[in-house]
Amino acid sequence: MVSVAFQGERGAYSEEAALEYFGSGVELYPMPYLSDVFKAVENGMVDMAIVPIENTIEGSVSETYDLLLRTTAKIVGEHALRISHCFMILSDSDPSEVVEVWSHPQALSQCRGFIESRRLRPVPYYDTAGSAKMIREMGMKKAGAIASCRAAEYYGLKVVERGIEDSKNNFTRFIVLGKDGAQPTGRDKTTVIFGVRDRPGALYYALKHFAENGINLTKIESRPTKDRPWEYYFFIDFDGHLEDERVKQSLDALKREVTFLKILGSYKKVV
Amino acid sequence: MVSVAFQGERGAYSEEAALEYFGSGVELYPMPYLSDVFKAVENGMVDMAIVPIENTIEGSVSETYDLLLRTTAKIVGEHALRISHCFMILSDSDPSEVVEVWSHPQALSQCRGFIESRRLRPVPYYDTAGSAKMIREMGMKKAGAIASCRAAEYYGLKVVERGIEDSKNNFTRFIVLGKDGAQPTGRDKTTVIFGVRDRPGALYYALKHFAENGINLTKIESRPTKDRPWEYYFFIDFDGHLEDERVKQSLDALKREVTFLKILGSYKKVV
Repeated sequence: MVSVAFQGERGAYSEEAALEYFGSGVELYPMPYLSDVFKAVENGMVDMAIVPIENTIEGSVSETYDLLLRTTAKIVGEHALRISHCFMILSDSDPSEVVEVWSHPQALSQCRGFIESRRLRPVPYYDTAGSAKMIREMGMKKAGAIASCRAAEYYGLKVVERGIEDSKNNFTRFIVLGKDGAQPTGRDKTTVIFGVRDRPGALYYALKHFAENGINLTKIESRPTKDRPWEYYFFIDFDGHLEDERVKQSLDALKREVTFLKILGSYKKVV
Repeated sequence: MVSVAFQGERGAYSEEAALEYFGSGVELYPMPYLSDVFKAVENGMVDMAIVPIENTIEGSVSETYDLLLRTTAKIVGEHALRISHCFMILSDSDPSEVVEVWSHPQALSQCRGFIESRRLRPVPYYDTAGSAKMIREMGMKKAGAIASCRAAEYYGLKVVERGIEDSKNNFTRFIVLGKDGAQPTGRDKTTVIFGVRDRPGALYYALKHFAENGINLTKIESRPTKDRPWEYYFFIDFDGHLEDERVKQSLDALKREVTFLKILGSYKKVV
């Protein structure tokens, strides 16, 4: 059985992503920190991991990008999960007596319409599934949680309403981490990180060979280097596999333009 | 007297940035939300505002970028503030009896070495200066806060230790917002937002004319469009003023490559 690590409590959206991607025949390892999840793959404690990389409303998950810079793991897959929030309370609570709602600040802000229409007091908490867990453990009768419906099942809570998010365009893209690179599937994507010299057109010249080879960039993200203020690493996703001739040529050319290049892997493209 | 809005409690780092940038002869308006700060400039309630845009450890402030997309305000200046955290307690507390430390999660993670060496229990809170305010208001004798030394002054707390951050490369860059664009100073920077068509090389062709005109890009940031999943707006900062001939030519050429272009303003470059 494949063992898979994810960050968060049981019932987290990352767990839902893992079950959608791997199916139910998988051994799941919830971990408190994202850095633990990366370490678990690196030291072979688990076969794979699944971590969030961007959300269509909130944008990129900076911590994941920063961990990718230093990891020895490879990106071997991706998955897009539709984020649908549920409102849940204790099974013996009366919905009309619930006055506050606990959740992660991002989930609270994504359900503003629902919260305002029910005149609930939002209480920011560290985690969505963690909010459900706490309401159960503390027996909080006047509070509800916003989390995945799966979290309600885990913690034995009653779902009062489903799909309470303001925008139906709410997706989180997850990446799958493993030790060995993935084989070409015919429709792949590759992720690399690079740094550029501080001179006019540096980023433009780095992207030049991809454009000239007709390779489509699907994402660019910059992160501070942390040791030199106002200098950045660039993370790019582009169509194609490391074994494709055009990709090889573009990366060979890129190597000559940049101060640093790290290849994170090629994997089946789903978005 | 110039009136200036900022987000946060009295003693926030944004207030420190305002005082460094404008000097002390300024009327300051603290506001609870970043969106209020933008609105205050747009409707003329204040002359200017100062808001954080990126930190050298944490990266970009997504909320500021998202608000820039919709604002009618202009960027008229920038300022870099060295972030130096202080540890503060009630003046009649005994430092050896303090067991927990309250602060914003980012500040807690930036002072991990200090917190571990003193074996304090970190308690995440919504704001740095807000933590100092709460310790004062609740008279919490066993708790300390991590915030700016200015916050200690405001809330009458005793500073136990200064400069407790792990990295001395900790700077936050702020932008200054106003109603009218700034005049050229000879060393300027311009910020624009654009969207590209979904085709190979789209970003490359957008950057082409800057490179060919020898214009240096100092920052690129992408943000999700929110209405179309996996599509992005690009925010770029580049050297030069809107009145420079080379900048005019590059922007004219950019207009022909992109689906959307918004010019946020030119301002004196400091980083």
